[in-house]
Amino acid sequence: MVDPAVPDYQLAAFLMAVVLRGLTDRETTGLLEAMVDSGDRIDLSPVGRPVADKHSTGGVGDKTTLVVAPLVAAAGTPVAKLSGRGLGHTGGTLDKLESIPGFRVDLSIPELVSQVAEHGIAVAAQTADIVPADKRLYALRDVTATVQSIPLIATSIMSKKIAAGASRLVLDVKVGEGAFMEDLDSARALSQAMMRLGDAARLPTTCMLSSMDEPLGCAVGNALEVAEAVATLEGRGPAEFTELCLVAAGLMLGDRTAADEALRSGRALAAYREWISAQGGDPDAALPEAPDVTDVRADRSGVVACCHSRGIADAAMRLGAGRARKEDAVDHAVGIVVHRKRGDRVEAGDVLATVHSRGPADDDAVRASFELVDGGVERGPAVLEITSAGT
Amino acid sequence: MVDPAVPDYQLAAFLMAVVLRGLTDRETTGLLEAMVDSGDRIDLSPVGRPVADKHSTGGVGDKTTLVVAPLVAAAGTPVAKLSGRGLGHTGGTLDKLESIPGFRVDLSIPELVSQVAEHGIAVAAQTADIVPADKRLYALRDVTATVQSIPLIATSIMSKKIAAGASRLVLDVKVGEGAFMEDLDSARALSQAMMRLGDAARLPTTCMLSSMDEPLGCAVGNALEVAEAVATLEGRGPAEFTELCLVAAGLMLGDRTAADEALRSGRALAAYREWISAQGGDPDAALPEAPDVTDVRADRSGVVACCHSRGIADAAMRLGAGRARKEDAVDHAVGIVVHRKRGDRVEAGDVLATVHSRGPADDDAVRASFELVDGGVERGPAVLEITSAGT
Repeated sequence: MVDPAVPDYQLAAFLMAVVLRGLTDRETTGLLEAMVDSGDRIDLSPVGRPVADKHSTGGVGDKTTLVVAPLVAAAGTPVAKLSGRGLGHTGGTLDKLESIPGFRVDLSIPELVSQVAEHGIAVAAQTADIVPADKRLYALRDVTATVQSIPLIATSIMSKKIAAGASRLVLDVKVGEGAFMEDLDSARALSQAMMRLGDAARLPTTCMLSSMDEPLGCAVGNALEVAEAVATLEGRGPAEFTELCLVAAGLMLGDRTAADEALRSGRALAAYREWISAQGGDPDAALPEAPDVTDVRADRSGVVACCHSRGIADAAMRLGAGRARKEDAVDHAVGIVVHRKRGDRVEAGDVLATVHSRGPADDDAVRASFELVDGGVERGPAVLEITSAGT
Repeated sequence: MVDPAVPDYQLAAFLMAVVLRGLTDRETTGLLEAMVDSGDRIDLSPVGRPVADKHSTGGVGDKTTLVVAPLVAAAGTPVAKLSGRGLGHTGGTLDKLESIPGFRVDLSIPELVSQVAEHGIAVAAQTADIVPADKRLYALRDVTATVQSIPLIATSIMSKKIAAGASRLVLDVKVGEGAFMEDLDSARALSQAMMRLGDAARLPTTCMLSSMDEPLGCAVGNALEVAEAVATLEGRGPAEFTELCLVAAGLMLGDRTAADEALRSGRALAAYREWISAQGGDPDAALPEAPDVTDVRADRSGVVACCHSRGIADAAMRLGAGRARKEDAVDHAVGIVVHRKRGDRVEAGDVLATVHSRGPADDDAVRASFELVDGGVERGPAVLEITSAGT
């Protein structure tokens, strides 16, 4: 598959055929195996215990890994995760972690394995040796209008998870306007496809579906999200985001109570600090701060029907928090903290969000992301549904 | 479309999307125009009269052009045709013509135009300046499993016909086992698609559908086919092949009687000789002859249910009459003449076919192409149906 003798044009024709015709389960499994076999597989057996992994299909303000990994590690299950950088409107876990002074994401595979064994958590950059076929296929999908395909998305995600060597996996499939999957049926179909692949590869996989119509938590922007993750580990995080993290950690542990206990006891916070230090970061260092902080106020009263994640993400990207192109640099300090979300009542003049910028903030774009109505709006659940293989 | 800035992988993805999803009429017309505009268009107005063109979708033993062009020119309508070389089991008109000593197919466009004006017929090799986009697309289709698509086949054929500048067109759409279109419905769909494109480009186009289950006429192989074409122009050709040529010529002329008269009077034969001479060939020169001539005899008695064109074509190709790859040379002398076709009664020991080869002939493969049954077989018509635009 990564064989250079197979030309790009044949892969491109194959990708378009998959987009338009789909693949059978057997074909999907065959593609998965070919992708996994295109590179190295990490052997986590030196850790001596089952290692858990999690993956989110990508959302706005998604700093879940920074909370969930410590919750799970504190409850006794090591966590190893390869992660990516942000592109477009969704942020990357590596960018968030790199806003912590000193934090190093480019671990070698032996470093990753020994850090998991010694400190219980490692989150490192995807290396070129893990599923190189995925990089080639993704680059082609990006330029041939073949990104949107459940078998291609499922094999892309699962090949990397299988090669990363964990022995249990929780997938957080985001659904809604800020997500890859815009409706519940597509999200369910992707979940089922990934669980079937997990099953075929003997990697027990559980999917949770969660809404991405609004940002996750309140902070969008790298350092701002790290601060929110730490606050969550300190028990001061937004309730729905805290709940989502506890659900994910509970699924990874197979024990929700253990996740709650890890948070309540402060052991998760300690696990976070140990992890950050182990990867060269200083958990006590001040995070980068943007010079200009501007409140965006409501111009009418009403109830928030939606704080649209796409509008917030685009505004944050324009501030420099994300990348339009792979080569772009990220400004770790800038971003947006939203203070009102679905179901919240606001009066004209109330602060809807705070913009952290270099230079003037685009108030209007942020304000326009808040859809205000006259009433009758209820908050949705943190997690929409949970599906385990065989259910 | 031929813009080198559009990479092969995007064209390949586009081609696969067309194969799997089709194109609307409007999209097909847009593709046609882009293809025609990718190169030069021949201006035949110096000829001073409407010029006719014909095209066959490719068959086994298809030497129709060699007979039809003289029939039409003899009846007063000039004929200009760009043609290709054979590849795979279908022969190319250029290869057949090149078996005539001295015949030159590489006319420049000005040479082509002045020959049509002076001598009434020119058949030349497709030049690189005519629809270069088609060459690029076809090369990609060949290696991405995207050959079989009615809009792609229709635009490939029609773009070249439109660029070639004729003002009326007859298409002979072959249907059956030795043809691009294996069933009547596909052949009709291709015909309709090409007529719609002719209509959009103001090139009046008529389609005739004819069976390709058996070879056309009796001769398969370049010089053998030239000899059969000359015999047909002399009034000694196989009846069904003669009829097919007269139907095609009648459609090109809009007058079947004029085609019959051109044949009967000998003026078509004279037009052939003038054309061959004009292109440097010697119509009186001996054609190349293969050293070994072997009769293949029936090993049982019965009635021929089918002389399978694919089997005969493959056997002829193995003799060297055709090309497996573009770079291959063609042996003009070799080939097969079949003596029995559908509906003919044979006794054990009767000669089914004669193989003209260099070295031993593969009798068994030729014999196996004849399907013998105990009876109840009728010949089919030379032409299955005729469709004009608007009918």
